[in-house]
Amino acid sequence: MKIALLGPIAWRTPPRHYGPWEQVTGLLAEGLVARGHEVTLFASLDSITTAELDGVIPHPYAEDPSLDGRVWEAMHVAHALARSAEFDLVHNHLDWLPLAFAAHCRAPLLTTIHGFSDPAILPAYRASSSAFVSISDADRVPELDYLRTVYHGIDLDTLPFSAAGGDDLVILGRIHPDKGTADAIRIAALTGRRLLIAGLVADERYFREEVEPLVDGDRVVYLGSVGPEQRAEVLGSAYALLHPIAFAEPFGLSVVEAMATGTPVVAFALGSMPEVIDEAVTGFGVSDVAGAVVAVARVAELDRATVRRVAEARYGADRMVDDYVEAYVSLLQRPQ
Amino acid sequence: MKIALLGPIAWRTPPRHYGPWEQVTGLLAEGLVARGHEVTLFASLDSITTAELDGVIPHPYAEDPSLDGRVWEAMHVAHALARSAEFDLVHNHLDWLPLAFAAHCRAPLLTTIHGFSDPAILPAYRASSSAFVSISDADRVPELDYLRTVYHGIDLDTLPFSAAGGDDLVILGRIHPDKGTADAIRIAALTGRRLLIAGLVADERYFREEVEPLVDGDRVVYLGSVGPEQRAEVLGSAYALLHPIAFAEPFGLSVVEAMATGTPVVAFALGSMPEVIDEAVTGFGVSDVAGAVVAVARVAELDRATVRRVAEARYGADRMVDDYVEAYVSLLQRPQ
Repeated sequence: MKIALLGPIAWRTPPRHYGPWEQVTGLLAEGLVARGHEVTLFASLDSITTAELDGVIPHPYAEDPSLDGRVWEAMHVAHALARSAEFDLVHNHLDWLPLAFAAHCRAPLLTTIHGFSDPAILPAYRASSSAFVSISDADRVPELDYLRTVYHGIDLDTLPFSAAGGDDLVILGRIHPDKGTADAIRIAALTGRRLLIAGLVADERYFREEVEPLVDGDRVVYLGSVGPEQRAEVLGSAYALLHPIAFAEPFGLSVVEAMATGTPVVAFALGSMPEVIDEAVTGFGVSDVAGAVVAVARVAELDRATVRRVAEARYGADRMVDDYVEAYVSLLQRPQ
Repeated sequence: MKIALLGPIAWRTPPRHYGPWEQVTGLLAEGLVARGHEVTLFASLDSITTAELDGVIPHPYAEDPSLDGRVWEAMHVAHALARSAEFDLVHNHLDWLPLAFAAHCRAPLLTTIHGFSDPAILPAYRASSSAFVSISDADRVPELDYLRTVYHGIDLDTLPFSAAGGDDLVILGRIHPDKGTADAIRIAALTGRRLLIAGLVADERYFREEVEPLVDGDRVVYLGSVGPEQRAEVLGSAYALLHPIAFAEPFGLSVVEAMATGTPVVAFALGSMPEVIDEAVTGFGVSDVAGAVVAVARVAELDRATVRRVAEARYGADRMVDDYVEAYVSLLQRPQ
């Protein structure tokens, strides 16, 4: 198939540090190329891919405050849509803007909804002719018609199994109230375990007021943003990943990355978490800090090798690529 | 000619109160229809026009906080561009988004640049195939190639000549540091004249801290937002319009509206003001509060009938419509 992957341009593909949408889009591009498809990846022009790379922005706008993301995103989308007739289908990973311009797409359009930033963007989804993929069953809105759910996949080779694990707890993700960094500190204190915090500060005030004062460099350590290379080490040498989210997260990449290294997860059971975690196998879903403290003790009962095996089967990149190829075929078989 | 006018959708066309871009676009639509052109106005669907009205948004997004302006603007632009092949040309009054998607416009595209909100939007202008009209010579950027300047026109019938004028000073426009509302209060106080303030509060904090404390309801009166109906009365019964702007304003609709009623203008000589005001004929350009105080005294030397006559010749809607028809013809005669 000739496939256009319309990727986001906030970060490089693959991202240097943070950039989950870019990470998934890049991994999908590699997998499709490996299966012999002709793939054009529309991304920032410093991206690294085995697909044909095209786009308009020399480097990602989130790395350069002089660039207006709205303007460059519009030029990027316009450029990709202008080439759309060359492809069998266009697979959009870039939120609502391509949907608003779906009438200008001259190939079937499939959109992976990586999350709804705001209910006010829904009119663009409802009005468009795109088919939709949800990234968890929990992330669906009733008004839209979905082709299927495809869980994100990860590159298992970069996240090798770590049989030993360790004693520390870890939290990995943006430092933001949504991600519950402060709750993770409370849980760790109550279990008497060390906490490693890894991630980009996404909410400066929250970091300054609720996280930084509790970071002592000994029992609570802030590692900063952790790039793809160190992620395996940080996750694989932990006892458990804490994921005490405060919002209905559509998917949790760090959750399945931890599982890939064999590290179980203790998460607040919101959004996709009950789907993503196999209860009492790869981790525990809990409802509050007290529940998390109990669950952390029970992590010792779980078998790290089983955690890895389940992660391989459910969240390997190959499974994701297969799912998307199936989705493409079913889209192209629809009456146009 | 078959002309698509791609208007903004922040406000109704014509605007109920504020909305200078919508005002100009609506007036142009009326004038083109009166000259026998086939005009489709893309605007909010509650707009009132003799042109064919088309669009996607039932009412303007600035009047409804549940609507995301970015999303609806994108759907609006996409809809207009999808119909573009039906027209001899598309005339864009909606900022940078249509420029980013100019490759999807299947008719010659002309853009009136109503003002640059930010230098970071310039890449969309540079990359597009649109022709450009500036609304004053002062508002040009060196990197762009302009077809011509067309000064805005106004509906002279709704702004009749008022021979008598009055004793008060008036300032009309958004309440914002850019518009110098606080400086107007200082100027009025130093000249011993009453000041009427008319306009929408665009900067709440500025209004609360620098304007409201000086409003006493007697010597300094805040009228609130003044719709098109009351504007003639407010402007025509004044001694002079104060326009102590703090930015390079690309054009000043309130300035030429005052002139139409015969009321002279005392403005800070920034941006387009030296072009728009005929010095010592329709008003005075000054550089600071002290200069304005001197100029206010000299307003008595000006002839209100002459102010009206100059405004009729330079800023009548007919002149603007003629200029745009000329611009359309020269655009269509260009080699495509």
